[in-house]
Amino acid sequence: MIENKNRIKKVLIANRGEIAVRIIRACREMGISTVAICSEADKDALHAQLADETVCIGPAPAKDSYLKMDRIISATCATGADAIHPGFGFLSENSKFADLCRKCNITFIGPSPEVIDKMGNKAEARKTMMDAGVPVVPGTKEPVYTAEDGKKLADNMGYPVIIKASAGGGGKGMRIVEREEDFNKHFETASQEAKNAFGDDTMYIEKYIPRARHIEFQILADNYGNVIHLGERDCSIQRRHQKMIEEAPSFAISEVLRKEMGEVAVRAAKAAKYTNAGTIEFILDQEDNYYFIEMNTRIQVEHGVTELITGIDLIKEQLKVASGEPISITQEKVKIRGHAIECRINAENPMNNFLPSPGLITSLHFPGGNGVRIDSALYSGYKIPAVYDSLIVKLMVHDANRDLAIQKMRGVLGELVIEGIDTNIDFQYQIINHEDYKKGNIDTGFIERLLNKKE
Amino acid sequence: MIENKNRIKKVLIANRGEIAVRIIRACREMGISTVAICSEADKDALHAQLADETVCIGPAPAKDSYLKMDRIISATCATGADAIHPGFGFLSENSKFADLCRKCNITFIGPSPEVIDKMGNKAEARKTMMDAGVPVVPGTKEPVYTAEDGKKLADNMGYPVIIKASAGGGGKGMRIVEREEDFNKHFETASQEAKNAFGDDTMYIEKYIPRARHIEFQILADNYGNVIHLGERDCSIQRRHQKMIEEAPSFAISEVLRKEMGEVAVRAAKAAKYTNAGTIEFILDQEDNYYFIEMNTRIQVEHGVTELITGIDLIKEQLKVASGEPISITQEKVKIRGHAIECRINAENPMNNFLPSPGLITSLHFPGGNGVRIDSALYSGYKIPAVYDSLIVKLMVHDANRDLAIQKMRGVLGELVIEGIDTNIDFQYQIINHEDYKKGNIDTGFIERLLNKKE
Repeated sequence: MIENKNRIKKVLIANRGEIAVRIIRACREMGISTVAICSEADKDALHAQLADETVCIGPAPAKDSYLKMDRIISATCATGADAIHPGFGFLSENSKFADLCRKCNITFIGPSPEVIDKMGNKAEARKTMMDAGVPVVPGTKEPVYTAEDGKKLADNMGYPVIIKASAGGGGKGMRIVEREEDFNKHFETASQEAKNAFGDDTMYIEKYIPRARHIEFQILADNYGNVIHLGERDCSIQRRHQKMIEEAPSFAISEVLRKEMGEVAVRAAKAAKYTNAGTIEFILDQEDNYYFIEMNTRIQVEHGVTELITGIDLIKEQLKVASGEPISITQEKVKIRGHAIECRINAENPMNNFLPSPGLITSLHFPGGNGVRIDSALYSGYKIPAVYDSLIVKLMVHDANRDLAIQKMRGVLGELVIEGIDTNIDFQYQIINHEDYKKGNIDTGFIERLLNKKE
Repeated sequence: MIENKNRIKKVLIANRGEIAVRIIRACREMGISTVAICSEADKDALHAQLADETVCIGPAPAKDSYLKMDRIISATCATGADAIHPGFGFLSENSKFADLCRKCNITFIGPSPEVIDKMGNKAEARKTMMDAGVPVVPGTKEPVYTAEDGKKLADNMGYPVIIKASAGGGGKGMRIVEREEDFNKHFETASQEAKNAFGDDTMYIEKYIPRARHIEFQILADNYGNVIHLGERDCSIQRRHQKMIEEAPSFAISEVLRKEMGEVAVRAAKAAKYTNAGTIEFILDQEDNYYFIEMNTRIQVEHGVTELITGIDLIKEQLKVASGEPISITQEKVKIRGHAIECRINAENPMNNFLPSPGLITSLHFPGGNGVRIDSALYSGYKIPAVYDSLIVKLMVHDANRDLAIQKMRGVLGELVIEGIDTNIDFQYQIINHEDYKKGNIDTGFIERLLNKKE
């Protein structure tokens, strides 16, 4: 066997928390040395303890440490690491950082800066997909300034449509229009609201997809043009566009649709000239129409459910692809076994508008047993810093089918003990036990309806 | 769908520790209520906390609680449980107990008392297997009293043979004879030693199988004559006949041999008229000859590695079979995926002759992540009682192949933290990192050789 000269020997993990731990473990299993970086607030963090070496790169605010490119590059050079794994968040989708790595002759474990750029620019990503014949949500390509122009476009699209303020956010300047005759009225209100709120009444119009599901396809692509997909994840249980529960496969996807969407996802990745692990996100309407939303050019929080049903280790595949190896599996060899669910356990208080709840973990007990996977950087006595994301445990289960997986998650949520802080464990338990969830009647509005009903 | 009237609705678990927890979890996932029993020493035990109901049935010595049949039956009746799961150890292979359950109209989750009896009697088990054409270790059927008689039998068997004292134990009165000309000398020494040690020089002669592996096949059988096997486990890493590491599949078994031994194991189970989950144990010599040793008529400690590679939940299958359901899978549908290893973590001190080390767990950290399964009844602050078995954690890993599984176990053993008591974690780490173990050069003498080399 010829020794691969590009084989990665030492990886700096430019991240923290459970994903840093996850990557350290994968490296360790592959015989790759690891360098952790940490902020001053993270000196006692598990990732900083588990890595072979740890470099403290600055004070707590991410801009002074986990986002500080020059320091991260310096730490990489100083420790002799030959690659950087960015994890998710922080610098993972920052093309400048990927480019800086390249210039410093450091392997960035992810796609090229050009691809990150292209997919990060929504307009360009949309255009790339349309050119490749990938369906995108129908919408205006140019800004709309008058109700008259807007209505023509909307009539053409078909109702319902959603009017959005270009500068929008927090739902301001946004209106759903169900019927043609309501268009002008809603447009005027929305653009007035936009003007008041942002001083800018540039508007866009998109087709509104009611009761949509969030369906995403996991992609693996190597440097030799091989692209495969590992099936889909259903991430429809979201609160304010933040995923809370992810599962694989999706209850809503038939074998035929999986094959079709999978092929489209592979086509999308090829069109983007994508390499490494990535995700093609779609929304799926009640009539099985699907539309590309965006591509995530990094590993995702919820990658574990795909690993559970396919038996493929995505982090290891990322490392292999970055080392210049071809993907070891063909599309035909990807077999889906059973059903997996992940609940994100956050340090937050659902009774108080999901306010983050950092602090000292006074007591901790993780459930275990058959079909239970826990990815976490918690330990008893650990103090969760206030400055980072509130995700603290990824609770995953795997069983023969969805009903059994739900039953298992029920039990696992019941066994999990995290004391000293507030968590969303009970809230997750409520969702898992909700009749609509159990029946698979879910869409991205599920949590909002649940919360509204309560109030 | 017709409601199964025999469906088990409430199970009393006549056991403690991790296996009790394992069974409680499986019941919970199937919507079956659970009753735990505990001794006075186990009031704070995890199994006693997790069950729907808990009955304290007596003081610590097992004979006054976990072996106290009448009290266990009383607790079952008092709580309205309709079935008992015996786990392993304690009353799990006690035919009187199984019979008592039957008389009290309680479903015993295991085979019939008759089968337990037949397989528990070594002579009868051996005869049943020989009649069914299952190879057994060649040996004398009747006691041997003189060297002359013995030598005739040994010559007939072929060397090496092992001379054993009928009353033997601890290696006393036991001699391995490599060559014909040494027989008389060794027989005299062995029988003299036996006479001195036990006052009884009744001897047996068996074919000696050098460098044998312990290979066992997992069997599932229902009440309708359906029997399947779920592949083998290699349990060759033993210390004084106590298994320490188990893995599945075995490194030593080819696909052809697996098929053959699997069929033999199914034939053995059918010959025994076996029902429920059971294990056929073989020894395997260096030339791929295998010999039946015994059948375990219960779930085994190491069942988890089989679950990991097959995706079949053995405890749930036990509950279904006991409820009168047929096995849901056919032999052809049993697919083996990857490789699984279990390390038994014991509260004991390998530096002091493996002396048990009960006591207070002052700090506990379980590893997690992809392909890691932990079955345990430990929690931080738990005090391990001195009166029970020293097994405290079953650390399992699952990966694509044996090398990867070993690498994973290495990391997992390195992450596991149990403070306050002595454990065999470091000793397990040594084995897992041993060149012979890594190469798969293992047999039941592995640990003995490792320990002798050190001294």
